[in-house]
Amino acid sequence: MNIAVAQSGGPTCAINASLAGVFTEASRREEIDKIYGSINGIEGIINDKLVELSTIIKTNQDLELLTLTPSTVLGSCRYKLPEAEADPDIYKKITECFKKNDINIFFYIGGNDSMDTVNKLSKYFSENKIDIQVIGIPKTIDNDLMCTDHTPGFGSAAKYVATSVQEIIRDSSVYCVKSVTIVEIMGRDAGWLAASSCVLKANDENAPHLIYLPETPFSIERFLEDVKRMLGEHKAVVIAVSEGLKMIDGEYAAEEFQSGANDSFGHKYLSGIGKCLENIVRQEIGCKVRSIELNVMQRCASHIASKTDIDESFRIGEESVKYALKGISGKMMAFRRISDRPYFSDVVPVDTSQVANQTKLFPKEWINNQGNNVNAQALDYFLPLIQGELNVLMKNGMPVHFKIPNWF
Amino acid sequence: MNIAVAQSGGPTCAINASLAGVFTEASRREEIDKIYGSINGIEGIINDKLVELSTIIKTNQDLELLTLTPSTVLGSCRYKLPEAEADPDIYKKITECFKKNDINIFFYIGGNDSMDTVNKLSKYFSENKIDIQVIGIPKTIDNDLMCTDHTPGFGSAAKYVATSVQEIIRDSSVYCVKSVTIVEIMGRDAGWLAASSCVLKANDENAPHLIYLPETPFSIERFLEDVKRMLGEHKAVVIAVSEGLKMIDGEYAAEEFQSGANDSFGHKYLSGIGKCLENIVRQEIGCKVRSIELNVMQRCASHIASKTDIDESFRIGEESVKYALKGISGKMMAFRRISDRPYFSDVVPVDTSQVANQTKLFPKEWINNQGNNVNAQALDYFLPLIQGELNVLMKNGMPVHFKIPNWF
Repeated sequence: MNIAVAQSGGPTCAINASLAGVFTEASRREEIDKIYGSINGIEGIINDKLVELSTIIKTNQDLELLTLTPSTVLGSCRYKLPEAEADPDIYKKITECFKKNDINIFFYIGGNDSMDTVNKLSKYFSENKIDIQVIGIPKTIDNDLMCTDHTPGFGSAAKYVATSVQEIIRDSSVYCVKSVTIVEIMGRDAGWLAASSCVLKANDENAPHLIYLPETPFSIERFLEDVKRMLGEHKAVVIAVSEGLKMIDGEYAAEEFQSGANDSFGHKYLSGIGKCLENIVRQEIGCKVRSIELNVMQRCASHIASKTDIDESFRIGEESVKYALKGISGKMMAFRRISDRPYFSDVVPVDTSQVANQTKLFPKEWINNQGNNVNAQALDYFLPLIQGELNVLMKNGMPVHFKIPNWF
Repeated sequence: MNIAVAQSGGPTCAINASLAGVFTEASRREEIDKIYGSINGIEGIINDKLVELSTIIKTNQDLELLTLTPSTVLGSCRYKLPEAEADPDIYKKITECFKKNDINIFFYIGGNDSMDTVNKLSKYFSENKIDIQVIGIPKTIDNDLMCTDHTPGFGSAAKYVATSVQEIIRDSSVYCVKSVTIVEIMGRDAGWLAASSCVLKANDENAPHLIYLPETPFSIERFLEDVKRMLGEHKAVVIAVSEGLKMIDGEYAAEEFQSGANDSFGHKYLSGIGKCLENIVRQEIGCKVRSIELNVMQRCASHIASKTDIDESFRIGEESVKYALKGISGKMMAFRRISDRPYFSDVVPVDTSQVANQTKLFPKEWINNQGNNVNAQALDYFLPLIQGELNVLMKNGMPVHFKIPNWF
């Protein structure tokens, strides 16, 4: 029996660790012969673009490097699988590829859409009595998947955010003049990552003084009041905002603020919420103000990855192989938190039908009454996920990444 | 005899290391009694706001933490000292503060403007037969100071840039679709830091495929031709641009491209060159495009500081005390490179009159003929400066910073 594994959706620091976990456990099992990697997610299955992983992961050092290399070594895709009734040919193509290569288990590492794919495929195989299991392995820095305590990739993103925001606090505090620094943090629909900047409280930082999440409707009037009040109390006000802030009408705040903005060549401007709020603070308050977008570094800064996150991401890969060999299908592997201190979690299978096409929002009970910060329960939740550092292999003063020559 | 030390200009990862070096060597010398820190640069001298450093640096661990904490623990200023003839009162105030506190040597850690201050002050003291020496210690991530091989703080900034750009390369390479990623790197007048991204070549990266510096006049037509050609050769094109790109007329490109841009509330938009070029690529080429501003993290990401840089920055602080006790004044301490491989440098005093109000540009001979990349000589120059990592003390999964409670 052979197996296949693919990676999908936006990159993270941990998605290769889960791949390494699948590879490691599958290599140990006698039941499994070949371990195929599918290039560019499910598209590699559809187009029969597979690679035998043992031809690219040849040594223990390869495996270690892969575990610590950000992004997806097998490439990724943003492919939404149609319903079987709507496009039966796609399902036939997928089935053919699996049959042709004697693949009986398919592991799909990804987010929301990938779990939808796992759900649809496993249902199709089961209804058509085709002996192929499909298992989902979660990943997203957004931490917004249902039925799991947290998602692989999130802890490393949170550790990068905390580390960078702390450095930004130092940077912003050097002059006598009052200032506002707005840090824009990823999270289109849920505010988990922006909220995670609260961990700095554990190291006696006052900042971020304000944290705004998409879960609370954003009001520009209240924002300006908050900022003015904080400027009365602190010399350098630092604010964490989620990129996905929404107005009371549900529209993205960034879009509402800049509709119609054009540059001198007529190009439409589309900047993030941080830049919008920077402009508004400059205009309405007039103090020194700067906005900082942490951008894709949040999802790829493996040089400061969380050991807890990378270890768990590797383990969820291993566990998914163990569970698969027990015969499950249509499930996503999930983390269940056993305790905060000491932190302990285990891995359990959950129904992908309960995960697909849903978003786990940051809990309202963890947001303060003013909607401009989070509480101690949030801190207890986040802290264990950013613990520990890894020994990054360095060469010429830079981290070494696992690369496949002439591939992409 | 007492001494005083102050920090000035924009923060870096290494400016506290130089302070720690001054403190360490001065503590060893019997000639020196008290070591004062001046709060907010020269402004602390003018306003008599001094602190005895031994009251805040109490233990070896304090000293180690200080060495690795980014930004300026004593605060900073952006103060341009007027000529003595234009404002004699300021010079009297400064002299009074030094006299009152028995300070005979003043160390000023800073950039261009600070060396101007060192130059003016030392001339004033010498002309007025006042027995106070003034010594400059360089720092700037821009690496644009004359008479020194490189500047403290630059190596750490370059190491952060290389590490982040490599992670961005991984991140940008996952999808099948062609894409352009533009990374905006600090450097208003000189392109050293953007150019330093070429070090990735030493680790077998092709990217950045294009590097644009302020030293070469920027042409939008040639830029678009370069990008189109690179899109023919590579799936994911990564471009490093210096924030200070200038047009042929000497105007900043970013300003020229967006004059008149306003958002829907009438706020003026002022984004960086990266965002401008992103908009232009989207409009003129139409491919997937993203811009990333590395922003202040370049100058404060001490968690990935260069050991070479931090060690040298500490050493230049120590050496400045040694040279001061030999009687020099009006000098800036500078690095002289002895050899590239193995890398070796020493510290020598140079005239601040040759440093002040000047900018050391990136050498034209190190830029390729097309003006869109740098050559192997640049690589040899940069590589030694980013070598080595430090043991960052972590607590709760985050780096520990040296902080003075209730100070700022």
